[in-house]
Amino acid sequence: MKNRKVIVLKFGGSSVANVEKIRFVAGKILSFKRKGFKPVVVVSAPGDMTDELVAEAERIAKNPLSHKRELDMLLSIGEQKTISLLAMALLEMKQKVISFTGHQLGIITDRNFTNARIRRVSTRKLFEALKRNYIVIVAGFQGKTEDGEITTLGRGGSDLTAVALASTLKVGCKIFTDVPGIFTANPRLYKKAKKIDIMSFEEMLEMAGAGAGVMQARAVELAKNQDVSFEVASTFANRAGTFVCGEDELLEEIVVRGVTEDLDQVKVSIVGVPDRPGIAAKVFESLTGEDICVDMIIQSSARRTKKSRAINDISFTVKRQDAEKTKKILETLRRRLNAKEVIIKENIAKVSIVGSGMRTHSGVASRMFSALARKGINIEMISTSEIKISCVIEKKNVKKAVEALAKEFNL
Amino acid sequence: MKNRKVIVLKFGGSSVANVEKIRFVAGKILSFKRKGFKPVVVVSAPGDMTDELVAEAERIAKNPLSHKRELDMLLSIGEQKTISLLAMALLEMKQKVISFTGHQLGIITDRNFTNARIRRVSTRKLFEALKRNYIVIVAGFQGKTEDGEITTLGRGGSDLTAVALASTLKVGCKIFTDVPGIFTANPRLYKKAKKIDIMSFEEMLEMAGAGAGVMQARAVELAKNQDVSFEVASTFANRAGTFVCGEDELLEEIVVRGVTEDLDQVKVSIVGVPDRPGIAAKVFESLTGEDICVDMIIQSSARRTKKSRAINDISFTVKRQDAEKTKKILETLRRRLNAKEVIIKENIAKVSIVGSGMRTHSGVASRMFSALARKGINIEMISTSEIKISCVIEKKNVKKAVEALAKEFNL
Repeated sequence: MKNRKVIVLKFGGSSVANVEKIRFVAGKILSFKRKGFKPVVVVSAPGDMTDELVAEAERIAKNPLSHKRELDMLLSIGEQKTISLLAMALLEMKQKVISFTGHQLGIITDRNFTNARIRRVSTRKLFEALKRNYIVIVAGFQGKTEDGEITTLGRGGSDLTAVALASTLKVGCKIFTDVPGIFTANPRLYKKAKKIDIMSFEEMLEMAGAGAGVMQARAVELAKNQDVSFEVASTFANRAGTFVCGEDELLEEIVVRGVTEDLDQVKVSIVGVPDRPGIAAKVFESLTGEDICVDMIIQSSARRTKKSRAINDISFTVKRQDAEKTKKILETLRRRLNAKEVIIKENIAKVSIVGSGMRTHSGVASRMFSALARKGINIEMISTSEIKISCVIEKKNVKKAVEALAKEFNL
Repeated sequence: MKNRKVIVLKFGGSSVANVEKIRFVAGKILSFKRKGFKPVVVVSAPGDMTDELVAEAERIAKNPLSHKRELDMLLSIGEQKTISLLAMALLEMKQKVISFTGHQLGIITDRNFTNARIRRVSTRKLFEALKRNYIVIVAGFQGKTEDGEITTLGRGGSDLTAVALASTLKVGCKIFTDVPGIFTANPRLYKKAKKIDIMSFEEMLEMAGAGAGVMQARAVELAKNQDVSFEVASTFANRAGTFVCGEDELLEEIVVRGVTEDLDQVKVSIVGVPDRPGIAAKVFESLTGEDICVDMIIQSSARRTKKSRAINDISFTVKRQDAEKTKKILETLRRRLNAKEVIIKENIAKVSIVGSGMRTHSGVASRMFSALARKGINIEMISTSEIKISCVIEKKNVKKAVEALAKEFNL
């Protein structure tokens, strides 16, 4: 079939939170149809429904995540509600439309309940419906295993569904959400922040990883791997959003695309650890086993105690929600290693600058450090990747830091 | 496999209306398991969820029934919610349990959305789960077509699912609901009404049809055709309910098993209709086309007008909700037939006595009429079937009538 006119449109939970919004979204889909497109629409559960279902499960089970198969059975009803109501709204507008759950359409996943990976998308029903000129509505976030078990794709999984369908159909994709696009900085912290018109997958990934979570990171990764360019735009404003594509499609290489902040981490230090090979490995092995994700890591150079033992300090950041668990694990380890103490520092923030131009431009890091120094902001930790530089600073300085960096790099 | 120990348990919406009740039901299932049974559990949507979903659909579409496929997509999520929460409750009790939607298990239906008929039940997953000693939880009310479309079985369809599963497994079935069983009379009208311990399918059908709607009539019919005996009992009381089985299993033939009343009908009369062949047919054809169900019918004998035209009157009962529509249709017909007038009488009630012993005992009807006459209750319409006699009376007399009949037949 000719896919040229097919387009994948994805609407998030806040865009379909109630009957009025669902009707609005139906109108928006219709406008694409009228422009000659054949829309394949992916939707999330309405508003907070998924959270409400989780809360209900928590009243039955202490930890619903210990019953993952049944949790997926429960969570998948949210999107099923949206697809049926949205399809009815379009039927009322005299449109030919058909809705599919993830399992009906044939979004085949592995058996990793609550966080499944898409293996393949079966195309029979999809192609048949498009051929017969139906608007196709697909429940995001969900799929089934080869033997018919219902699975979900993890938080933000509807983005993943949209990208997977776009990849299957070899077409582009529009991610409609409650923001107008990706910004050069958080507009709440820096009023002059501008919407980014175009950026690369890699930049988007680094921006998302640093806290600007407009879209599920796995979905952006899939888009990158499958080269599915997409646009992030607002459902309720009729304006171009941020277009995200391969680096080779970017006409102009910008050194720094944006600045982001992450207030959701804490700094953990284990102080006075014996300076022996394998100690750092022990520390992080103990955390990995508990599913705790470690972000930035620094290790001090060794020093000597009065008794002439060689010791050093290891610091790293973890998500705020893992702080307690991390402290407990490290306290046990501290006793075993005879280390001095474990310190959790809560009042930190991570600020990052992201830009694919960093690959070819040097001196970006020193400009960042100078800009922060001029504002009297102390840097506690630094980490760098190919296209990102992150600094941990005191939380109270985050607004000042974002402003300074936005100005320094003309964002 | 040996089915002897398998039992189908069905819990209605009021039994699983909230988390506490779901936990109670889980405990009840567990008690069957501990007695050595292998429970296959069928559940409805929690409380009023189905009604709420319909209400939401009505905010999107003027008449959701014009979008039946999408309505079924919507309505089927209620039971899916119950099965997952109930399965979690049993998992918390350390039980081996697995839930299935109707489509997952393979309840295959025709394509008659919102009121589908079960064609067959595929047994692979069911037998496999039972063999592995799982408690099986099945979403009632829903199935799928051969090509994977989600269907629902009509109001009360969970009863149908339960009976179909019991038939497939060749085992009995317990229908748990919010009443302790079927009563000889409505306890609100006759305080001395007794719970019926045992009755036949036919009696249950006639009782249900006459307004004692404890169970979906189609489910009782299926039970009768497949010879699936079942028990109707209260979820929250630990007592025997009413056992319903084939007539041949009844040890004792009771002449009158119960009395029922139906306040949900109105009497419609079209007066002064020309007495010509085919006129009655015209009247009822016009109603059937509009999906209006006619219950009792009487036609007066012909009389002559002053101009010596032969005329008569036709009266029948319809459901209260169809009264307006019926009146409109008949008014059109009245003008065409040059009949005198259309009268709707709202304040009526139908009282019926039911009992399979009527087949072999004569004189039951005259005892009924005399009992009513002794209380000064006028009978407006009469209809009889093999095991039921119904009379239409004035609504205000219904309590008096039920009491009189209950006493007359020792109910």
